[in-house]
Amino acid sequence: MSSEDASAHSSVRLGSVWHGWGDPARRAPLPRAAREHLAAAGLLGERSTPVPLEQVRLPDPLLSEAATAALVAAVGIEHVRTDRLTRVLHAGGKSYLDLLRRRRGDAEHAPDAVVCPADHQQVRQVLQACVQHEVAVVPFGGGTSVVGGVEPLRGRFSALVALDLTRLDALVDVDPVSMTATLQAGMRGPQVERELSAHGLTLGHFPQSWEQATVGGFVATRSAGQASTGYGRFDEVLIGATCATPSGDLVLGRGPASAAGPRLLDVVVGSEGRLGVVTSATVAVRPAPAVQKFTGWSFPSFAAGTTAFRALAQQLGHGVAPDSCRLSDEEETTTTLRLAGGSLGARALRGYLRARGRRTGSLAIFGWDGTAAEVARRSRAAAALLRQHGGVPLGSGPGQAWSHGRFHAPYLRDELLDHGVLVETLETATSWRDLPALHTAVAAALRRSLTTAASAPLVQCHVSHVYRTGASLYFTVVARQDPTDPEGQWLAAKRAASDVIAAHGAPATHQHAVGTDHAPWMAAEVGETGLQLLRSMKDSLDPTGILNPGKMMP
Amino acid sequence: MSSEDASAHSSVRLGSVWHGWGDPARRAPLPRAAREHLAAAGLLGERSTPVPLEQVRLPDPLLSEAATAALVAAVGIEHVRTDRLTRVLHAGGKSYLDLLRRRRGDAEHAPDAVVCPADHQQVRQVLQACVQHEVAVVPFGGGTSVVGGVEPLRGRFSALVALDLTRLDALVDVDPVSMTATLQAGMRGPQVERELSAHGLTLGHFPQSWEQATVGGFVATRSAGQASTGYGRFDEVLIGATCATPSGDLVLGRGPASAAGPRLLDVVVGSEGRLGVVTSATVAVRPAPAVQKFTGWSFPSFAAGTTAFRALAQQLGHGVAPDSCRLSDEEETTTTLRLAGGSLGARALRGYLRARGRRTGSLAIFGWDGTAAEVARRSRAAAALLRQHGGVPLGSGPGQAWSHGRFHAPYLRDELLDHGVLVETLETATSWRDLPALHTAVAAALRRSLTTAASAPLVQCHVSHVYRTGASLYFTVVARQDPTDPEGQWLAAKRAASDVIAAHGAPATHQHAVGTDHAPWMAAEVGETGLQLLRSMKDSLDPTGILNPGKMMP
Repeated sequence: MSSEDASAHSSVRLGSVWHGWGDPARRAPLPRAAREHLAAAGLLGERSTPVPLEQVRLPDPLLSEAATAALVAAVGIEHVRTDRLTRVLHAGGKSYLDLLRRRRGDAEHAPDAVVCPADHQQVRQVLQACVQHEVAVVPFGGGTSVVGGVEPLRGRFSALVALDLTRLDALVDVDPVSMTATLQAGMRGPQVERELSAHGLTLGHFPQSWEQATVGGFVATRSAGQASTGYGRFDEVLIGATCATPSGDLVLGRGPASAAGPRLLDVVVGSEGRLGVVTSATVAVRPAPAVQKFTGWSFPSFAAGTTAFRALAQQLGHGVAPDSCRLSDEEETTTTLRLAGGSLGARALRGYLRARGRRTGSLAIFGWDGTAAEVARRSRAAAALLRQHGGVPLGSGPGQAWSHGRFHAPYLRDELLDHGVLVETLETATSWRDLPALHTAVAAALRRSLTTAASAPLVQCHVSHVYRTGASLYFTVVARQDPTDPEGQWLAAKRAASDVIAAHGAPATHQHAVGTDHAPWMAAEVGETGLQLLRSMKDSLDPTGILNPGKMMP
Repeated sequence: MSSEDASAHSSVRLGSVWHGWGDPARRAPLPRAAREHLAAAGLLGERSTPVPLEQVRLPDPLLSEAATAALVAAVGIEHVRTDRLTRVLHAGGKSYLDLLRRRRGDAEHAPDAVVCPADHQQVRQVLQACVQHEVAVVPFGGGTSVVGGVEPLRGRFSALVALDLTRLDALVDVDPVSMTATLQAGMRGPQVERELSAHGLTLGHFPQSWEQATVGGFVATRSAGQASTGYGRFDEVLIGATCATPSGDLVLGRGPASAAGPRLLDVVVGSEGRLGVVTSATVAVRPAPAVQKFTGWSFPSFAAGTTAFRALAQQLGHGVAPDSCRLSDEEETTTTLRLAGGSLGARALRGYLRARGRRTGSLAIFGWDGTAAEVARRSRAAAALLRQHGGVPLGSGPGQAWSHGRFHAPYLRDELLDHGVLVETLETATSWRDLPALHTAVAAALRRSLTTAASAPLVQCHVSHVYRTGASLYFTVVARQDPTDPEGQWLAAKRAASDVIAAHGAPATHQHAVGTDHAPWMAAEVGETGLQLLRSMKDSLDPTGILNPGKMMP
């Protein structure tokens, strides 16, 4: 087994910020304007810093000698890791609650070991070893879950390993005729784009976690990315997958479409490591865009903006409508303008708005990919429609500012946590008909739950994905952290919002998966008969229940 | 219980041609040109006529008194039908093998009764009664399965009923803001379009069986229609479904997209009545098109045409590419020209081809729906691309001829059966890369199997659906019927073709579901672990196995 100071493959790539996000070199202090705004609103709490790594409470590994030997036989001794940093890095995901716990030095539930197989065959051997020795397994890609999806829950097992898939990082096949690629599950977002771009191709899948997240995670969580309105959600670009399960391999996806029974690929998608371990995925790819254009627009109100977005989705349709569409409600627009401080984008945006006599309204960002001619044609078609709905173009400044900062929010969150600020997101989707009512109701529930005598929270929302029949709603909440019970503070707000979402018949999540956090709303999502169906799938593929215990099911 | 001469709701709507297709008034004799061509090719066999209905061998109903009483309690006495016509009409689907058997008077496997519930609640009660009294249930919509999907197989049960859903025929809800509609499962294609058109809407789902097929069947068989390239396959337009199962109701679909676990809606889709009975479906609808334009194009070869079709799918993409695309290979193009005889379309097509110095080549038909401006813009974009790939426009004549006759083929088949001609279809899909090889290999297998000393079959193929990553291949076979063993003759050819398809890694079916006929290839489709997963779903929702025994699983 490797020593504590070995340079862990996965540790290096996850960065050493075990209590926060990614690369420490990319953190920046909270902009002054933001700090002042938060202070004025009474949202700054007690400053804190994460405890040092060596003080993190980490129990001794519980893996039996026999289990350890079987895992070593499967992957080699240097890939069964028990060093402090690796175990702490695999002790959970990246939700607000995860970070709170990690910052105060709690890794009591960390996996006993982190097992890093090299290929599909080794994944199978690891699963067999874990079945035989009764060891729970948490499949682990980028570890970016914000819903408790990689929480090391042991269920009935006394030992648990994280199954780190990041050594499965090969581009297996590219078919430029059929425009498909087969990717191993451990490839992270940037590597996928880097390797595909050598073939003139793109996957076009950019969730905010893109820099860390892996292909296997995209499959397992039914991921959606910022450009999924155009490129399709991951379940729409996925055409095949290979999956190791305790009951045997699943090799799914034969050609572009099949009418042979239930689509089992859509059972693997969203299965969150409970049914098996995705080891590779075949996806539809596109030509790498010659041009990427981002533009900002302003609408008189969120209501006017949503009507315009609906027109884009229903009248232009897929392929003509923008590839990325984001519409901030009035509160998010105001916050964007204030918190962005003196940045180029915000200055440009304020200037544009002033020149057009509009104070805030609702800010929209659109992104188009393609050839110059296509982008010009499509953005012209969209512009005509947007003007009809009261849209005013703001030029490329705000769009470029958003594009530039779009993977930075998790770093900002680390800063806010240092400042005693609660910052978290939640999201859902609904029909166009119910969108205004659901937007209002969720925001009200969050506001009600988080308002104290001292301060009112910022509750902001944007539409991030549009469909012909509806759209997503993505809420961001900023509140003063309750130092006595920060977990309870957020859990109450989350519960209030999720109950409203369930009562409206909307999904528990549009893009963040279930994990532990949404499990209480799965009965509303699929009903008792649906839960029973999910259980039967689990029993079939993982009869001893080693895979990711305690997730998804209420 | 109703008497033999009662005018059965379902019988009337299915037409009285229990041994063939639809409305007898719409049958027409085989065109002279076609008959002459078939005679010259040695393809006409022994003439036959179906035995009269009263001579059809129909066993006495086996339903116990207790079971009958329970079913009568559920749906009312007049909706538990045992009259001869109704039972024979529900004795199977509409495949070549079904029609052969029915024509010679074999309804030995007919259901003991046909039960016609009025609503979801009655469907539940029927299922409960059948569980309690151990009666197998075949859910039955339009009865148009061509793969044995509604074959009344009893499995371990001594009694069997067909569950006819055509009384569930209401348009439940229309949401013109979200562009969705909720349809009861028993609505047939024309009724759906008629009722939606009153709201200015269309579903745009037109399989060849459209005149008879039902919404529930579209869900249960994972249907694709002629315009699915543009409107989306049924699994793409479906956003929700209600399903009665022996274990309870499944009510699925919350908003336009969800990331909450495996997509159970995609387990119901394609479940072929084995997991539950779909009672209603919520679908995305579109504005009824102001303009429908069909045009014909000619390509120098099928290879050139497929390259052009690939360009449409990959370069124009969804929403700009034609809503319907059909490309006939050289043999189908030749047959179309010959068999169409003196019809307006064929005359026009031959004239166009002659004028352009092209004998046959590969015929393409495109269809566009939309506003006049959209259709003009989209067809211009397509035309530019098609010309680059050697396409020559043939004007609207061939397109209109195809459009006019596109639901008529099943009637033509009845005529051909009268003339001792084997006529059957099979289909699959594959990647663009493998398409040429698979096309050649399947055609060769069919030709090899069906060639005799006396005659060679017509083996023709067309692409009917295009995707970014591949396309469907739809084969039509015309051969001289072997009068000694017509079933064995076709089964051997089907087996040869399906083995080739499986060896190429292509799906057992692109649009016809599994039923009995594709069950032997399901292990190739989903693997042993996939079969086990399918079995677990069945055990969960239908623990006593009453629903559609003997289907899908090998």
